[in-house]
Amino acid sequence: MERLPGFRDFYPEPLPQPDLWSADARQYIFEHWRATARSYGFREYDGPPLEALELFTLKSGSEIIGQLYNFSDKGKREISLRPEMTPTLARMVAAHERNYKKPIKWFALPQLFRYERQQKGRLREHFQLNADIIGEKDPAADAELIALLIDTLRSFGLTESDFVIRLSSRSAWQEFFLQHKGEPAREYEFYQAVDKLEREEPAVTEQKLADLGLSLAQVRAFIEAGKPTVELQSILDNLSARGLEAYLKIDYGVIRGLAYYTGPVFEAFDRKGEFRAIAGGGRYDNLIALLSGGKVNLPALGFGMGDVVLLELLKERQKLPRFESGIDGVCVIEDESLRADSLKLIQTLRGAGLAIDYSLTPAKPDKQFKRAQELGASFVVRLERRETGELVVKARDLGTRQEDVMSLVDAPARLKRR
Amino acid sequence: MERLPGFRDFYPEPLPQPDLWSADARQYIFEHWRATARSYGFREYDGPPLEALELFTLKSGSEIIGQLYNFSDKGKREISLRPEMTPTLARMVAAHERNYKKPIKWFALPQLFRYERQQKGRLREHFQLNADIIGEKDPAADAELIALLIDTLRSFGLTESDFVIRLSSRSAWQEFFLQHKGEPAREYEFYQAVDKLEREEPAVTEQKLADLGLSLAQVRAFIEAGKPTVELQSILDNLSARGLEAYLKIDYGVIRGLAYYTGPVFEAFDRKGEFRAIAGGGRYDNLIALLSGGKVNLPALGFGMGDVVLLELLKERQKLPRFESGIDGVCVIEDESLRADSLKLIQTLRGAGLAIDYSLTPAKPDKQFKRAQELGASFVVRLERRETGELVVKARDLGTRQEDVMSLVDAPARLKRR
Repeated sequence: MERLPGFRDFYPEPLPQPDLWSADARQYIFEHWRATARSYGFREYDGPPLEALELFTLKSGSEIIGQLYNFSDKGKREISLRPEMTPTLARMVAAHERNYKKPIKWFALPQLFRYERQQKGRLREHFQLNADIIGEKDPAADAELIALLIDTLRSFGLTESDFVIRLSSRSAWQEFFLQHKGEPAREYEFYQAVDKLEREEPAVTEQKLADLGLSLAQVRAFIEAGKPTVELQSILDNLSARGLEAYLKIDYGVIRGLAYYTGPVFEAFDRKGEFRAIAGGGRYDNLIALLSGGKVNLPALGFGMGDVVLLELLKERQKLPRFESGIDGVCVIEDESLRADSLKLIQTLRGAGLAIDYSLTPAKPDKQFKRAQELGASFVVRLERRETGELVVKARDLGTRQEDVMSLVDAPARLKRR
Repeated sequence: MERLPGFRDFYPEPLPQPDLWSADARQYIFEHWRATARSYGFREYDGPPLEALELFTLKSGSEIIGQLYNFSDKGKREISLRPEMTPTLARMVAAHERNYKKPIKWFALPQLFRYERQQKGRLREHFQLNADIIGEKDPAADAELIALLIDTLRSFGLTESDFVIRLSSRSAWQEFFLQHKGEPAREYEFYQAVDKLEREEPAVTEQKLADLGLSLAQVRAFIEAGKPTVELQSILDNLSARGLEAYLKIDYGVIRGLAYYTGPVFEAFDRKGEFRAIAGGGRYDNLIALLSGGKVNLPALGFGMGDVVLLELLKERQKLPRFESGIDGVCVIEDESLRADSLKLIQTLRGAGLAIDYSLTPAKPDKQFKRAQELGASFVVRLERRETGELVVKARDLGTRQEDVMSLVDAPARLKRR
């Protein structure tokens, strides 16, 4: 029985094969995502992994629709696994925003799905950190969100020599398009062409642009000039005040594929340009009104950071720690007549918050010691009965090899303090 | 746009309506599940939320098959959202068990799905703690697993007066069935009848049993005698050594609905009997061989604990903490000319691991103070420019109302130490 193509199993470390996915690395990434978002005052939310199909087809643009993992359920309802989190967020905010103070600062760690033609190494699911600010028009919100993005990546030990945020503006591109007499109805078509600029043959882009009444040279000149708008300058100044200016550059080569962006947009890339985008996001001031049928109208912005590219980058830059078993100590049972008392000791140590393992069945003491070392435990404990009949705990530090003798009563606190 | 029936949105606290689901309570439950499993030396794993349909139809018995959330994907593949984790675990273990030391002790926190006829309050998804031990036949493994179940519930502040583990044995029931001349081929039918005993009209069960050549009186007498098998006695003794005997009772009224159990089975219930089972599990020694086509043959056992009943119980017993914003401090910006310097301070404090919030746009100081209180922050900080031009940090403890003045350099360490 095989798993479905494009899906991942996550195994505990050490991994038996280098091509398996690590549950420990995933959890390590999740913990850093959560901790950084919380330090910025973002609150966690989540929605269902399945939504009504029309939640996603209503606004996301053609790129995402072709890749939806959608199907009919047993009740003939058209549903889809979520390809992105923003529509769910917009739906949730529209339903209950009245009771939350603005700006709303929320984050989620959703698993997202797409149904792509199966290609080697192409996944049909990944996890994302999604962080959004809702109810604030001021570019101070864009700066706050970008600072969170930067600090999230810094929390993994990545620095300004590892990554850069390419900051752009959908509204600057809109202005460019209209100034060059672009047809307003074909605006999104134009954004799509610019979005593909770096990945397509110049001749293909040239043709698309010509069809829209523009030239590749005009587009390239606009990107090259890279003149920040007033809004982008305000974001730059804000991030400079935080000391984060080295992580940013204005780069109109970025425009984002999704249809719903309206203002500043940005993507995080590794400096060497070896990987796909690490994260991307921007303003989508009209989306909540659209998805709530005009009921709620709130400006909003957000970004998503996937686990796959991030993990590749952390591996390549050797920023991942070595993942151990997480075991603090192993209880060695040398004398089977002391098993019941050892179980009691184990119970007490675990109750004190220590992670303790032991051999469920009788085993040679040297095998038990060896197992403790394999697990990366920092100590072993074992019970010993004195000639007086009294039980004592012998604890050996597996680093220093030093052995301490302590009473059963003292053991939890003393081992905890180590 | 509505969410699909039977699915949940999770909102940050404080909840605007009492009937909404709390993302904070969910995370609180997840953290306790993880911490306790780790203290027992269990390692985290995960698989895909979707699997090939036959992974679930191969062995789970009729009860689960009718409730599968299955469909055909765009490639005409028959797939299903996972209704339980055990088949995925068995698949993963069968693929790579050679490289993991036995016994394997693994846990996961999967979201599980079922497609039931929509009823008021009946959910189509829930989360579970799944913990399993693979590769150990000895009842010491059953005891270790049940101890983990007990300590997981205790980690929430629940005690022996709140819940009890009803311990039973599929093999004891098998022996009973064969001794009473039951037809081996109809064994599972018999287990199903016993499983429904507490929920069905006696006349219905009586009829089912008669059809199998047994009487309700015989079954009731067996349950009432409640004589532990050698295996169950060994589990009881092991748990007594840990001091956990008060959490257990032998109760053959429990048998578990799934087809694949083979030995000891158990369920956790609230003592008052107000809720459905909090958790359930048991031995399934033949399942891995079945699902791996005989390739791998390992004894195994596990339990699942759902988030929905647990949350109801914790609420009813008032064991949930009050969930705050998680914000440590709020930076109040009284003087807009100090905004850039305040952003620098906020960046430094967050970098030191403090959760800091502030007003993204100019706001009256008293409004900013009020917001700090609403957020449950423990302090506010603000910058003040001395006549000498020097900037100092004023930090007010929102509990004691005491205000301390400190330098920008000292602020992170001093506020962190509070």
